[in-house]
Amino acid sequence: MIEAALEKWFQFIHGEDAADRSALLDECLADDVVFYSPIVFTPQKGRAAAKLYLMAAGSAFGGDDSAAAAPAGGNEAGGGFRYTKQVVTGHHAILEFETTMDGTYVNGVDIITCNEAGKVVEFKVMIRPLQAINRVHAEMGALLKKLQGEPDAA
Amino acid sequence: MIEAALEKWFQFIHGEDAADRSALLDECLADDVVFYSPIVFTPQKGRAAAKLYLMAAGSAFGGDDSAAAAPAGGNEAGGGFRYTKQVVTGHHAILEFETTMDGTYVNGVDIITCNEAGKVVEFKVMIRPLQAINRVHAEMGALLKKLQGEPDAA
Repeated sequence: MIEAALEKWFQFIHGEDAADRSALLDECLADDVVFYSPIVFTPQKGRAAAKLYLMAAGSAFGGDDSAAAAPAGGNEAGGGFRYTKQVVTGHHAILEFETTMDGTYVNGVDIITCNEAGKVVEFKVMIRPLQAINRVHAEMGALLKKLQGEPDAA
Repeated sequence: MIEAALEKWFQFIHGEDAADRSALLDECLADDVVFYSPIVFTPQKGRAAAKLYLMAAGSAFGGDDSAAAAPAGGNEAGGGFRYTKQVVTGHHAILEFETTMDGTYVNGVDIITCNEAGKVVEFKVMIRPLQAINRVHAEMGALLKKLQGEPDAA
């Protein structure tokens, strides 16, 4: 059920062209998708809000193992984003990942749920350990502020 | 593959007798299980360490929806621990949960992996949002200190 959306998601993760990546998110996310941040309680409703967060996360975490895809800002460890577990059944895909952000180890999970049409209706991210959460909070907050011109968000 | 361990795990979650619950963990955890805390980076190796964390978490989060199973220490919200998603395939079980801790909403995920013998070899917990992590950090830190007599752990 969720396989087609997941294929688009992996193309997004490994993509490099911003317009292509935006189109891939449009194809896999439902209009009424809800994004749940690892940091803030409030669900982000609708495709536009979800895309904002997912594009920012893609930028902050680095989209690939290659040095070229490392996040801007001098990440010494070179990004190194990789999925370490993929558990997929029916409407759910749960993807565990590891990466580094400015030398801080980040371990997280994408919890993705699709509707009957195979479009993503819920996208939730959790991260560990505490040090990684604090790092992601700082980086994502700054990125989202830049992207949306709002004073405080993550 | 992981179903038998999972059955023991749910019995542990809903159990009330401390000795029975300890025995259930012995039955489902492998000797060399590794526990990954939502807070600290360092993996906790071996069944004894994993049990310490899981018993503390069970106590902090509340083991059931009933008021009787609410954590000691005056949790006003009465625990209310419940699994909201269960994604199980082969060697992996990923269980999303919700609860409240002193009125703070906690959303988390247990990422459980078993070996060929069906025993749990990896147990990883992640939590969101940031407010919940800070609450769990404080509560678990205090509980683990009491349980193991160490100055700083979570």
